[in-house]
Amino acid sequence: MPEFLKLIPTQQALQILLSHMQIKVSRERILSLNALGRVTAETIYSPIPLPSFPRSTVDGYAVRAADTFGASESLPAYLRVIGEIHMGNSSAFNINRGETGLIHTGGMLPDSCDAVVMIEYTQQLGADTVEILRSVAVGENIIKVGEDVQAGQEVISSGVRIRPAEIGGLAALGILELEVAEKPVIGLISSGDEITPPESNLLPGQVRDINSYSLSALIEQTGAIPVRYGIFPDQADRLEAVAAQALGECDMVLITAGSSASARDLTAKVINTLGSPGVLVHGVNIKPGKPTILAMCNHKVIIGLPGNPVSALVIAGLFVVPVVESLLGLTNPGTRARLLARLSTNIPSQAGREDWVAARLYSEPSGYIADPIFSKSNLIFSLVRANCLIRVPPDATGLSAGDLVEVQLLS
Amino acid sequence: MPEFLKLIPTQQALQILLSHMQIKVSRERILSLNALGRVTAETIYSPIPLPSFPRSTVDGYAVRAADTFGASESLPAYLRVIGEIHMGNSSAFNINRGETGLIHTGGMLPDSCDAVVMIEYTQQLGADTVEILRSVAVGENIIKVGEDVQAGQEVISSGVRIRPAEIGGLAALGILELEVAEKPVIGLISSGDEITPPESNLLPGQVRDINSYSLSALIEQTGAIPVRYGIFPDQADRLEAVAAQALGECDMVLITAGSSASARDLTAKVINTLGSPGVLVHGVNIKPGKPTILAMCNHKVIIGLPGNPVSALVIAGLFVVPVVESLLGLTNPGTRARLLARLSTNIPSQAGREDWVAARLYSEPSGYIADPIFSKSNLIFSLVRANCLIRVPPDATGLSAGDLVEVQLLS
Repeated sequence: MPEFLKLIPTQQALQILLSHMQIKVSRERILSLNALGRVTAETIYSPIPLPSFPRSTVDGYAVRAADTFGASESLPAYLRVIGEIHMGNSSAFNINRGETGLIHTGGMLPDSCDAVVMIEYTQQLGADTVEILRSVAVGENIIKVGEDVQAGQEVISSGVRIRPAEIGGLAALGILELEVAEKPVIGLISSGDEITPPESNLLPGQVRDINSYSLSALIEQTGAIPVRYGIFPDQADRLEAVAAQALGECDMVLITAGSSASARDLTAKVINTLGSPGVLVHGVNIKPGKPTILAMCNHKVIIGLPGNPVSALVIAGLFVVPVVESLLGLTNPGTRARLLARLSTNIPSQAGREDWVAARLYSEPSGYIADPIFSKSNLIFSLVRANCLIRVPPDATGLSAGDLVEVQLLS
Repeated sequence: MPEFLKLIPTQQALQILLSHMQIKVSRERILSLNALGRVTAETIYSPIPLPSFPRSTVDGYAVRAADTFGASESLPAYLRVIGEIHMGNSSAFNINRGETGLIHTGGMLPDSCDAVVMIEYTQQLGADTVEILRSVAVGENIIKVGEDVQAGQEVISSGVRIRPAEIGGLAALGILELEVAEKPVIGLISSGDEITPPESNLLPGQVRDINSYSLSALIEQTGAIPVRYGIFPDQADRLEAVAAQALGECDMVLITAGSSASARDLTAKVINTLGSPGVLVHGVNIKPGKPTILAMCNHKVIIGLPGNPVSALVIAGLFVVPVVESLLGLTNPGTRARLLARLSTNIPSQAGREDWVAARLYSEPSGYIADPIFSKSNLIFSLVRANCLIRVPPDATGLSAGDLVEVQLLS
């Protein structure tokens, strides 16, 4: 049996993991003006209607529409101007039949008026008379009370990532604080006898720890807090001790394995000592990232990531990001920027396996072009040079230059 | 002459503004692990080659390729196993002709070897002999020194936004600090007699300040620091005083105008008192946002934004974001997620003007669908409900259901 038939497809692997999660979002109350990027943990209802008074949408004259019926350039209506409606004030005066008041965009319509004539269709005659050169219908050039939002209406759902528009909406409603999901804490453990910290001088055979730092940045970007536990040798007892500590202190733990096969198996063994059910998926039908481990111990997710820095970052995008989003209670993870591009050159691939290939996306008048960055062994700078990943679907036996491919932007 | 012919197209307006800017990026030195989202202010060169030693890409046996020539399942080569190359160590032993050592993925190839045979194509015979069942070429299954990056090679350009991949790359090279652009400080002034702070109770005719908060969030998201100067009435002397103060203290100033025509003209007058050349563009051929003012006073950019919260946020996305990116020295603002979608319904528009329409984007098997959110007067919650903006190009007289349209994601 070919190996890929024993491996679990990416989406199925993710579903197995997510289906074992029992999400209980911890909330905290924060100031709305600090909420950018946070995820709502309550449904927000509007305490007031918006707008809260009828407003003019133009500069012009507030009228009773009936007073303008039949008005035209050749046969204007004449109205008596009784004053100007100042911005930010309720109109102190009442407008009777045959009367009007100057009003500005956003100004409050007097009670007795039901429309506004744009200033372009009027002509002032002396101090207190205006010619109306066009008729208006009831409701014309005004926004009614509650036309944007009704009092009591749901305006922001629970589980929504706050953007500048939501910050503005909360300000509009005078909502100064809200409940958001606490940032989940994600523990990071690097293992591998060859790994040393970035600040150390390299001895022959050693490589610096990349994954603790690139994954910390990804976790931060997703709205969680990374905690780095450091680098551990490929020894079961030491890995077990630190993983148990991290599992106690964090909401989720990531272990990047040493790169040899025995080191990878060690990660699975260690995870299975930490609690039940333990390893759920060991091996995903994807390149890079085949040796990925998805596990759940004592209601917390543990993911064993490949040691190769490119594999680790690609797999974290596909598995860690959705789990963090679940921990945040995010209900609409938004449109992750997946777009279609024409391939600049052929990509070989093995049928039955999903491949992700680093590429450079650029825009041409005819659309996007994706130019794969071929790299023998997925070295970190191939990802630095890339701005997207091309997905080669499992049913493809390679892709050809000119094919329309799905790409995911790297941010 | 129709009004839109007097108005300047969006791209041309932006170019006028950018062409007046003399960018001098202020730098600061920060820790690489705090650099996520910052913009490099120096070119990074690699101090070392990566990898810094020849590495195996598989688990297997390190060999001299010549020793395997002609080997096959029916006629294996036999090599003497002299030991195991441990991860993170230089190989203490030398491998002579007819000898081999067990090596792991990422392990350091001994000097005298030039290839690795995958473990799948070998068979251990007793403690010190291995059968090689397939020949390998020189260089097979190894990564050479410098194959990812050469010593001295440029690895990250100046003016690049740091992502998780760059954080990983810096760690790999042992670069612990780098020069990034200081965050520009952007002053925000709200004007309008009807505007009150979010925390105040609304009197009839008053509306809460939305723009100071939504624009602060957008500025933060773009990598700059917002400073809110507060709300000012539509009075020239008070606006002049605060704008002059903000211009002295900030790298750029935004003034959101009161919504009446006279309030908008006031902004232009105030800006022209602040320094030369003053207002460069007054009126852009776009909806929403026609009354936009682009100005330069004493080498600093001032932008007068429309008071309407939707217009202000849309215009800020088109003008403020690129100016902030210029102040940061960003050379590749990245692929802002613009994608193509099918329109769900007709959009009317006036030929000769660029329109941006809030919409909900959703994904169907056939591709993206954009469903416009029609709102009479661009109320803030139309943007809260939206996840993208549809661009209606100036040469279109409306768009029809089923048309392929360009949309920009709102994040």
